[in-house]
Amino acid sequence: MVETAFPELVEQQKPKPIQLKIAVLGGGSFGTAIANTATRNGCETTLWIRNAETAQEINQTHINKKYLPDFELEHALHVCSSLEEAVTGKDLIFVAIPSHSFRAVLQAIRPYISSQAVISLTKGIEADSFNFMSEIIHDELPEVPYGVLSGPNLAKEIIQGMPAGTVVASGSEMVRFSVQDALHSAFFRVFASDDVHGVELGGALKNIYAVAMGMAVAHNVGENTRSMILTRALAEMSRFAVKLGANPLTFLGLSGVGDLFATCNSALSRNYQVGFALGKGKSLEQAVQELGQTAEGINTIIQVKKRASELDVYMPITNALYEVIFEQAPALNIAMALMKNGHRSDVEFVLPHQKV
Amino acid sequence: MVETAFPELVEQQKPKPIQLKIAVLGGGSFGTAIANTATRNGCETTLWIRNAETAQEINQTHINKKYLPDFELEHALHVCSSLEEAVTGKDLIFVAIPSHSFRAVLQAIRPYISSQAVISLTKGIEADSFNFMSEIIHDELPEVPYGVLSGPNLAKEIIQGMPAGTVVASGSEMVRFSVQDALHSAFFRVFASDDVHGVELGGALKNIYAVAMGMAVAHNVGENTRSMILTRALAEMSRFAVKLGANPLTFLGLSGVGDLFATCNSALSRNYQVGFALGKGKSLEQAVQELGQTAEGINTIIQVKKRASELDVYMPITNALYEVIFEQAPALNIAMALMKNGHRSDVEFVLPHQKV
Repeated sequence: MVETAFPELVEQQKPKPIQLKIAVLGGGSFGTAIANTATRNGCETTLWIRNAETAQEINQTHINKKYLPDFELEHALHVCSSLEEAVTGKDLIFVAIPSHSFRAVLQAIRPYISSQAVISLTKGIEADSFNFMSEIIHDELPEVPYGVLSGPNLAKEIIQGMPAGTVVASGSEMVRFSVQDALHSAFFRVFASDDVHGVELGGALKNIYAVAMGMAVAHNVGENTRSMILTRALAEMSRFAVKLGANPLTFLGLSGVGDLFATCNSALSRNYQVGFALGKGKSLEQAVQELGQTAEGINTIIQVKKRASELDVYMPITNALYEVIFEQAPALNIAMALMKNGHRSDVEFVLPHQKV
Repeated sequence: MVETAFPELVEQQKPKPIQLKIAVLGGGSFGTAIANTATRNGCETTLWIRNAETAQEINQTHINKKYLPDFELEHALHVCSSLEEAVTGKDLIFVAIPSHSFRAVLQAIRPYISSQAVISLTKGIEADSFNFMSEIIHDELPEVPYGVLSGPNLAKEIIQGMPAGTVVASGSEMVRFSVQDALHSAFFRVFASDDVHGVELGGALKNIYAVAMGMAVAHNVGENTRSMILTRALAEMSRFAVKLGANPLTFLGLSGVGDLFATCNSALSRNYQVGFALGKGKSLEQAVQELGQTAEGINTIIQVKKRASELDVYMPITNALYEVIFEQAPALNIAMALMKNGHRSDVEFVLPHQKV
């Protein structure tokens, strides 16, 4: 149905022996792209959208006018607005609901859960509680096997069949295997990990550093400085993640450096643009006003700064961003924070700072 | 002397208590930039250049006309063409000599070595032998403490005082400390590591993946695909490096992902350009002819493919590049290699492939 940018890859596509039953909750661009991928892959797939009219419209037109207006979806993809219908009797439930409504949707599907597994597609942290999406699943549906999916996955590129990779992380081999089976194709490669928190943190934290990168580019920095920002961002992210029980090596993968690279390279991302405006000397109010919407990275900076201080984790870039945005420090503080002669080990899990 | 792009950072600069005596061997752009940095930092610094006339000219004009024509060097930097004069009585000797002449220069300085430490600035592998620069130092000067310096360090940006970071790797704490002392400043941050081979391999292998990235961009790939290439490149590099005794976490640092990011983002790099031409269907001969010179990455592909096969390391991108360049396989083989459903772990040092 959908044209692929790489028709030669189709040859590599093999028919699937099992046809899983899939529900995707949330019809934003990423939820829609994943539902479309599963359908294309031969899975019986239902996409749940809150608004009944929109659901009916997509069933008729096969186009998600609001989020992916330029792409025709697979005709076999079924869209509905009943959670009961979407969830009952499925094998896998993918949840692509914004972090502030994630918990409420899980509570709403609880009555319809029998033996389904639940996989989060949402990148983010629950405000105030600092809960991961995996923790919310475990809180609300304690008996359910769960996982998370994260990686450098622009929805528009997935819909177009541009080669992409992602990571499913779960402690359950069955969940990892089923998600690979449901989504893996010649265009979309699903890698596996068992470091759930590490994979989630990559997706949640990267937006902070997209703000920093935008700010740096506003100061005309070169490749050396951009590379240092990326690397010091990984040092901060992995340091923070290890404190929360993750494996630092996870940041070497798609959900870590892969997603960070995509986000920091994308001059169109909201976080990057807010950073650029701040770097040009604008206030947060001005930057947000120009953009017409808020940037996720700003909220993440507030949350992570607070949590890092509670956990006593050294995060100079995040702290400097906070000072620049909320305490009127000059944007050059970011550069000062980078160049400060503090932690002097390149990768502290190789050579500890105190041994440098 | 040299104007900095970030004058505010100067305030952070502290006077150095010790003045080390430094020699830099090799007056290419990077050797010159490091010699200039050490001089600016207060070290008594001598730059050795083979050609006596060129040496004299730089002493008079303070400009390295061939490699950095647009920048005035520190006037205190002394240039000479006598190895004996350059090396005798120094504390640190930095060697910025191309890999094919590296060993010969070390042999030539052997008579003048007393208690100096030797630090390689050269990124590469000795052809045929597959020796690292650190191994050549240890071979030729077995009693000498040694280290390597590597990172995302474009010479022109360093000369301009754009913030940059690098890594010194050495088993000797004294070497790490002295190099930090000699080069660390408010503009140039020197991090430390004790994983010498890991740091060297980052610098040597990255050119392979710049070729792959150029090839992919010729096929108009999106951000998802570029991120996957970067991440799978890190998987290959770290897998290969671990087989040679390195720590995979080193690739999370400046000499790993930092240098890879800079190289893969630089559309001006020779390796990227050769890859782009190959991706557009040109032969290696045509690509090299258009470029007017060879690309280091091509030689690295040949060497690493051979060594990986001897060591039995799975390197699908390197192998696919070899087939495209030397065996007339279609450039799309790179995509096929990326999407092949083989090794399915995201980071094999987190979750081994056989447990996926």
